[in-house]
Amino acid sequence: MRLAKPLPPNSVIGILGGGQLGRMLALAAARLGLKCHIFAPEADSPAFQVAARHTCAAYDDAQALHAFATGIDVVTYEFENVPAETAAILARLVPLAPGSEALATSQDRFVEKTFLAGIGLETAEFAPVDDLDGLERAIARIGRPSILKTRRFGYDGKGQISIRHDIMLDAAWAQFGKRPAILEAFIDFEIEVSVIAARGWDGSIAVYDVPENRHVNHILHQSIVPAAIAQTTAAQARNIAGRITSALDYVGVIGVELFVARRDGQERLIVNEIAPRVHNSGHWTMDACIVSQFEQHIRAIAGWPLGDPGRHSDVVMTNLLGDEAENWRNLAREAQAGLHLYGKAECRPGRKMGHMNRLTPRQG
Amino acid sequence: MRLAKPLPPNSVIGILGGGQLGRMLALAAARLGLKCHIFAPEADSPAFQVAARHTCAAYDDAQALHAFATGIDVVTYEFENVPAETAAILARLVPLAPGSEALATSQDRFVEKTFLAGIGLETAEFAPVDDLDGLERAIARIGRPSILKTRRFGYDGKGQISIRHDIMLDAAWAQFGKRPAILEAFIDFEIEVSVIAARGWDGSIAVYDVPENRHVNHILHQSIVPAAIAQTTAAQARNIAGRITSALDYVGVIGVELFVARRDGQERLIVNEIAPRVHNSGHWTMDACIVSQFEQHIRAIAGWPLGDPGRHSDVVMTNLLGDEAENWRNLAREAQAGLHLYGKAECRPGRKMGHMNRLTPRQG
Repeated sequence: MRLAKPLPPNSVIGILGGGQLGRMLALAAARLGLKCHIFAPEADSPAFQVAARHTCAAYDDAQALHAFATGIDVVTYEFENVPAETAAILARLVPLAPGSEALATSQDRFVEKTFLAGIGLETAEFAPVDDLDGLERAIARIGRPSILKTRRFGYDGKGQISIRHDIMLDAAWAQFGKRPAILEAFIDFEIEVSVIAARGWDGSIAVYDVPENRHVNHILHQSIVPAAIAQTTAAQARNIAGRITSALDYVGVIGVELFVARRDGQERLIVNEIAPRVHNSGHWTMDACIVSQFEQHIRAIAGWPLGDPGRHSDVVMTNLLGDEAENWRNLAREAQAGLHLYGKAECRPGRKMGHMNRLTPRQG
Repeated sequence: MRLAKPLPPNSVIGILGGGQLGRMLALAAARLGLKCHIFAPEADSPAFQVAARHTCAAYDDAQALHAFATGIDVVTYEFENVPAETAAILARLVPLAPGSEALATSQDRFVEKTFLAGIGLETAEFAPVDDLDGLERAIARIGRPSILKTRRFGYDGKGQISIRHDIMLDAAWAQFGKRPAILEAFIDFEIEVSVIAARGWDGSIAVYDVPENRHVNHILHQSIVPAAIAQTTAAQARNIAGRITSALDYVGVIGVELFVARRDGQERLIVNEIAPRVHNSGHWTMDACIVSQFEQHIRAIAGWPLGDPGRHSDVVMTNLLGDEAENWRNLAREAQAGLHLYGKAECRPGRKMGHMNRLTPRQG
């Protein structure tokens, strides 16, 4: 179901998922005079604290989903692993954005890579792997080192192992857990970047500047804006994001992760993966842009004009993981820094508890 | 009661009043991982939509106030006309910021002007007026033109009449309604400015840059930052705000309205009034600063370090009154402009429905 017309102020946005992304979406919607109804199974969901309504129920609770859909004008989500049946129930009752195609594409790494290659974008060489024989065939073609990844439900480096030269394939396959997988060639990249783009129901597109993303233990540590890449490379990256959203007839904000490799002295972009939602590497927009990625997503799905993605400052976003957020008193003291804490009741090692945006005057 | 120690994330801020100021305070608190409990009598209070909890009850409902105080760590308010008894009940149970002295001072124009003059600040010449005789005596001293204002509950030009040369005093006093009043000399000012300042429990002070405020029909229309005044005048204005907060042992954000008059070719500052709360002329901080006046107020009352009040852009804030907000689709299209809508259910002529912050690169 498509949105019939732009949603006026006081309309209700339904959001699946009650974590920090849902919370920041709800805060951004409030700025525009829009209400939010959060649907999430966890009773202590941080997004519940800032939304006009919430439903605490399982994603497969069809009755709760029907009641939820009755009082909302559009539905979106903060995570790409929304069960297909949940999305299907809602999409029959209310406009769903981003749509089912974006969800299905991003939920399965093999489908995703096939889609990306199919629209002419460069990815790591890849092959599906369903059993040990398939792994051996894939290795014969792609070679080592390479990376075996679960097709579904992987995140932050979970569900993947490196296939180095010294590893035994049968042991690797057993260790991996014999799940449907994809083998990807190892990319010898210089840096990782991402593009945060938005597309409206009318096909309009807005793209933010490109951050460089630095990871620690496979978890995003910092996004540095602008990335230290050639302007032509940044323009290519932004163009790639636009092509992806158009090909998916996408509505909302998308995060596109890319590797920057060097070949014959030139920077080359290789698409790693897409996230059909607001993205951790776009949190810098909350303080360096007048319209954050969260407001942009709300504008896009509500049929509003997309906001100006222009950036008034240079910025470094740093995630606060686990007990790093307990340093809030010192962090709050820093000049020209935006501190964001997510209202999570429990602090666990590696858990995303907040982030800091440190601004500096824009250089050119 | 004073705050014993800084409130850690997940503490609960109590807010009296559920209008747009309470709403924007709640949104700012959420950014810092703090929860809000809104207390307001109107069932459709815009702030209810974005707060973890709310109580819909009258301000003189002692039982509801006691229950409210039980679950909060500090209490503040979005309007200066909090009944003294309400403030007294809460202040016995939980830290109240800004404190009772600030409330009492700002609720009565005569007390306010007496306080300001008492700490050596220039105000319009003024005299209390309780009856027609008093009005005649006041006019004999202060002269005409002058302005007769209600001592209490005036706002946006309501509760005041001009005493021009042609007006009959007995008719004016009858028209005014014979309420306790103050007569103020007419000030021949060039522009109106304001200062938004914050003071913490520890006496630390942070002051934003000075906006020029333009009114239409006595309602704020635009705040222009920076104001076109001499740097020394702006510094004096900021200094005045600091002196006021120190004299009141103030905690929180305060709005100080001043007239800029010219005497002997020099700019002179005359204090008009103070508002013991976040202030409409500080809404520009939401997009031109990294820490808005709303976050600053929450930081101050919660015992956090005050945030950097630095401004990264020049900005013009324009209020959206009544049906001006119905132009949201065109307003949302503007580049480098922050659109804020307040989620009010009903649009009435002159009602504050939202505001726009239009940014331009900072000039020096």
